[in-house]
Amino acid sequence: MPFTATVLTMFPEAFPGPLGVSLIGTAWREQDLWRLETVDIRGFSKDKRGFLDDTPAGGGPGQVMKADVIAAALDSVDLAGRPLLYMSARGRPLTQARVKQWAEAPGIIVLCGRFEGVDQRVLDARGFEEVSVGDAVLAGGEAAAMVAIEACVRLVPGVLGQPESLSEESFEDGLLEHPQYTRPRTFEGLDIPEVLVSGDHGKVAKWRRQMREETTRERRPDLWDRHLANRQPKGR
Amino acid sequence: MPFTATVLTMFPEAFPGPLGVSLIGTAWREQDLWRLETVDIRGFSKDKRGFLDDTPAGGGPGQVMKADVIAAALDSVDLAGRPLLYMSARGRPLTQARVKQWAEAPGIIVLCGRFEGVDQRVLDARGFEEVSVGDAVLAGGEAAAMVAIEACVRLVPGVLGQPESLSEESFEDGLLEHPQYTRPRTFEGLDIPEVLVSGDHGKVAKWRRQMREETTRERRPDLWDRHLANRQPKGR
Repeated sequence: MPFTATVLTMFPEAFPGPLGVSLIGTAWREQDLWRLETVDIRGFSKDKRGFLDDTPAGGGPGQVMKADVIAAALDSVDLAGRPLLYMSARGRPLTQARVKQWAEAPGIIVLCGRFEGVDQRVLDARGFEEVSVGDAVLAGGEAAAMVAIEACVRLVPGVLGQPESLSEESFEDGLLEHPQYTRPRTFEGLDIPEVLVSGDHGKVAKWRRQMREETTRERRPDLWDRHLANRQPKGR
Repeated sequence: MPFTATVLTMFPEAFPGPLGVSLIGTAWREQDLWRLETVDIRGFSKDKRGFLDDTPAGGGPGQVMKADVIAAALDSVDLAGRPLLYMSARGRPLTQARVKQWAEAPGIIVLCGRFEGVDQRVLDARGFEEVSVGDAVLAGGEAAAMVAIEACVRLVPGVLGQPESLSEESFEDGLLEHPQYTRPRTFEGLDIPEVLVSGDHGKVAKWRRQMREETTRERRPDLWDRHLANRQPKGR
C-alpha cells in the first residue's frame, strides 16, 4: 500500500487542486506512488436535518463543528497507524522536520475545519496534532491541508525525479536557500553575480553559504537564532 | 472593479481548488465580490522549444525559471497598483497583519515558482515580496498561493456572512484562539468545561482569555514573547 493521504473535509470538490498537477499528480494518477482519498464529513451528521455544527458553548459568534460528526467520519477510515493532523490557526507551525517524519509513515489523515473550528474534545480524544501554515486565518483547512500533503508527498521515494536536489533545500540544515540565477547573463541591465560565472566552485560554494546566512538572518531571525544555538559546542 | 487575485502559474488547472467552494466560492462565482484570474506562464517562453527554465548559474541540481519568461508573463497583466507576491520557502512568513494590508489593495498578483525557484533578478527588478507559508518545502507555489489568496479574500467586505466573527480570531490581537466546544454536553465521556455551561459571562470571558494565553505560551513562544513585549509600558 503506497503512502495514502486521507482528507476529512466538507468540500471534497476542492481536491486535488495542486496535488493533481506536475510530477506529484503523475505519481498519484499514473504511477500509484501515493494515494489521495477524501471523506465527505457532510455524510456523517447524526441529525435528521444533516447539521454538522452547532453554536459555541459559552456563547460567541459563529458555529462549531460537532465532535460526534468528526468522530464518525474518522471511524469510517482505516487509520493504519497514520498520524492525525488538524489544520488550524491554533496549531504549531508546520516544519520540514515534522514533514519528514510524516512522509515516513504509511500516510497521513488530515482534518479540515470550517466555521469557528472543531469541538476540542474530538481533537483531544483521538489525538489530532494541530498544525498551522502561516500566521493568517483561513476560511477552512483545505488549502492548508494541500500544503501539508504536498510537502509530504514530494519526499515519498520516486515521486520527484532528482533526489540530490532535496538535500540543498531551505530548512534542511536550518538555513534558507541561496538566490538562484540562470541565463541570460544580462536581464534588463542586471547581471548574474560575477562569482557564479567564474567557474571557481570553491568561491561559488562560499558565496552561496554567505547568501544563505544573510538571507536567514534578515528574513528569519527565529531560524537564525536556532541555527546559532545549534552551532554552539555543547560543554567542553 | 472588485478585489482581483491574479496568479502566474505553470499549472492554471490547479485552480480554483479551495477558492471555488463555500462562501468564498459563491462570492466569486455568483456575487462577483472578488475575481480570480490565472496566467499560464507556459505561454511566455521566448524559446522555439518552449523552455521556461535553464540550469542554475554556478552549478547545482535542478532548473531555475527564467527571468525573461516571468517578466513577459507579468507584463501581460494590468498591475493596477496591486502588490506582487512570490510564494517561496525563502520568504518572510505570512502574517495576518500583512494579509489585512493586501486585502485593502485592489487585489494581489501571486507568482508560483516551480523547480529550484525563479531567477532572483526578476523578483528584485519588479519588486516581488517573497512570502512563505510554514517552514516546509513544496513542489510549487500553487497551494501556498491558495492560502494567501483565501486569507485575503475572506476579509473582502461582504464575502463572509458575519463580520463580528472576524474580531475574535487568532492573531487579531497577537494571541491564538481559545478552544471551542458545542453540544452534546458529554462526548465519549468528556464533558464541556463546566465554566462554559455556567451562564456566567464574566467567568467565560476570563477562562477563554486564560486559555488563549496558555495555548499561545505553549505552542507559539515566538508570539507570546511579542505579546509580552507589546504589553510593556513604553517608558514613564
